[in-house]
Amino acid sequence: MTGDHATLFTAAARHADTLTRARLVLYAGANLPSPEVLAAYSPGLGAMPSMGPSFDKEQPGTELVSQFEVAVRQEACALFGAAWAEPRLPSATLCNLAVFHAFARPGELMLAPDKAQGGHLSQRRGGTPDLAGLACEELPFDAAGLCLDATGAARMVEQRRPRLVMLGRSVMVRADDIAPVVAAARAVDATTVFDASHVAGLIAGGTYPNPLEAGVDVLVTSTYKTLPGLPHGLILGRDPAQGEALARLLDARFLANYNAALLPPLLRLLTDMRRDASLYAARIGRNTATLARACRARGLPVIAPEHGHTHQMLIPIADSEAPRALVAALAESGVIIGLCPDITRAQGAALRVGTQFLATLGLDAPAMEPVADLLAALLTGPMGVRLRPDRPAALPPAIRTLLAD
Amino acid sequence: MTGDHATLFTAAARHADTLTRARLVLYAGANLPSPEVLAAYSPGLGAMPSMGPSFDKEQPGTELVSQFEVAVRQEACALFGAAWAEPRLPSATLCNLAVFHAFARPGELMLAPDKAQGGHLSQRRGGTPDLAGLACEELPFDAAGLCLDATGAARMVEQRRPRLVMLGRSVMVRADDIAPVVAAARAVDATTVFDASHVAGLIAGGTYPNPLEAGVDVLVTSTYKTLPGLPHGLILGRDPAQGEALARLLDARFLANYNAALLPPLLRLLTDMRRDASLYAARIGRNTATLARACRARGLPVIAPEHGHTHQMLIPIADSEAPRALVAALAESGVIIGLCPDITRAQGAALRVGTQFLATLGLDAPAMEPVADLLAALLTGPMGVRLRPDRPAALPPAIRTLLAD
Repeated sequence: MTGDHATLFTAAARHADTLTRARLVLYAGANLPSPEVLAAYSPGLGAMPSMGPSFDKEQPGTELVSQFEVAVRQEACALFGAAWAEPRLPSATLCNLAVFHAFARPGELMLAPDKAQGGHLSQRRGGTPDLAGLACEELPFDAAGLCLDATGAARMVEQRRPRLVMLGRSVMVRADDIAPVVAAARAVDATTVFDASHVAGLIAGGTYPNPLEAGVDVLVTSTYKTLPGLPHGLILGRDPAQGEALARLLDARFLANYNAALLPPLLRLLTDMRRDASLYAARIGRNTATLARACRARGLPVIAPEHGHTHQMLIPIADSEAPRALVAALAESGVIIGLCPDITRAQGAALRVGTQFLATLGLDAPAMEPVADLLAALLTGPMGVRLRPDRPAALPPAIRTLLAD
Repeated sequence: MTGDHATLFTAAARHADTLTRARLVLYAGANLPSPEVLAAYSPGLGAMPSMGPSFDKEQPGTELVSQFEVAVRQEACALFGAAWAEPRLPSATLCNLAVFHAFARPGELMLAPDKAQGGHLSQRRGGTPDLAGLACEELPFDAAGLCLDATGAARMVEQRRPRLVMLGRSVMVRADDIAPVVAAARAVDATTVFDASHVAGLIAGGTYPNPLEAGVDVLVTSTYKTLPGLPHGLILGRDPAQGEALARLLDARFLANYNAALLPPLLRLLTDMRRDASLYAARIGRNTATLARACRARGLPVIAPEHGHTHQMLIPIADSEAPRALVAALAESGVIIGLCPDITRAQGAALRVGTQFLATLGLDAPAMEPVADLLAALLTGPMGVRLRPDRPAALPPAIRTLLAD
């Protein structure tokens, strides 16, 4: 059937409001742009291609695009302490693919995070690296410490001498100590890449240690998880020669044109973050710490560190439960949470709970108590959770009041 | 220097108005979305990932995204006469890269258009096909006919037995006869791809023959050249099994997430085109035919067919001129035109003039007379043009009046 789709368009126009008022969004990879970021979208800048280096573009009349490219690079470098920035790629997955093509050749080896500990498909064996012909081997993980096994990873780098080392994961409940890996990678002339898609806003705000300061060569991120931007990608780095090599790849083979209409929203996001990221990241950390404590106090199992919280905490799911049916049931009750592997036990599944969306709504630590009440009303189980049969079918008044404020 | 960038943001907000009121945009790959298409952007739909097949997504609470995916596919298939459509890729270049990965393996051969006749870097040797490890050989061209040498291309397909045949170019002043190539490709089990980025709106409007009706397997397009949409990509095809293979590639390796906020604008564009494309494409064809005739009447050389105009016509540039300096000088006078190879002579350059942007503004054939007046006031030369020393430094009143209406 085709038609005027009026119902769909109305629902789409309302959907941001639906997410903020009628859903409790605890999905760890979600965010919304501010009205100012959204309003900065410039259809005029996206009206025609702008191919090639800033101020040396194939198309005439693109000086304003070049000015934005320069400004975005400057703000991105200032926010993340980078020497170069590449703002033209549409997603972090495609950033990773571009990085693979720019800094490795088919057949070369990349050490990468394991799917079992939240290695994203764009980072790991069986995913995007395959498209660039990379061989992947999995970095070791410290399940008790909830983080990368830094010593083991450094030893693996020394022994395997890879071309690339991919750090960061889509599950990061605490910071990894990447210094030993960076040192080992330098010794064998491997390029280190940190996929900060999940923690970029925390890095900007100073609550997650900056991988570039720790010596990582290349940092990749998306712009709509702990950064409240429009969906897009961003690559930053330390060595300008690497930035130039990447830009040549984009110009000649990978990207041709891109949507320059997104540059003003990105510039607005970055300048807003230079002002707001510290408070925003601190609020996120407080929210996660408070929610973890409050959930534990209500008898729910929680995977999170004692200190140094990110935006994420995990709630392990009982092996008796079907994970996708469980999150679908939570969504029917108005609570949006995603799944991830339980990083503490093989083949286990967990809820990956994120607090950054609530932080964007302005909710702070005290609001996490009614959130924990709701989670405890939905879920039960001392080791891994299952659905309560008597769970509420909709968001309770206490949560609706929070979201209405 | 970093700062509040107020001047830049103001210029970006005004830039669509600048292009429509203060520039004569004859760039052949430019367009602007309608206010309705732009307003349909839905930040709520882009607030979190929506990975995997429609209604079987990894993320809960994404039913509305799935509904839009289904609706966009239906409208795209209806508009282009396709059996399947893939709406998740951000640009035509990345569509092409995905197609290469989905339907060929490294080391396999693709016959592709030559750069000298407008083969785009995403289609040809030295460009995007390299990233998928494809070997490229150039299809023959009929310079006198201003189109693909269909007989020679079919013979080449029979002899070289490629895995892929890439058709379409970024320079298309008349339609290619692709039927012999499609027949030859079928005989050797090669997959045919038509990059319709430049002519998709003309195909939708029936003034350019539909490559899918001619038997092409896969059609790739961008959405902001002869389609007046937001920048994005679209892939369509005839065999649902190929659509499924492509979708599996995107889900598992190429795309992970995408920006679902763009689905409502794409749906609005496609439904609007089902209503408007015939009139729009006919106006574009009239504009090009009229402009070509009017330029010739004023002594300017024009490369265009007698009948069957697309949105493009070429004006060859004298070998004595520096092409990029020439288009920069035109831009200073307010006229935005791009460059391309002169498809009629080796190593020659030409202006690639497009009429679709003016058609979007509502300008019809009579308006092409003052446009030709202006081009003749800017350029001179019987075989290849050069800049007039006494050219106007700004848009003349006759053009400003046209654009103000």
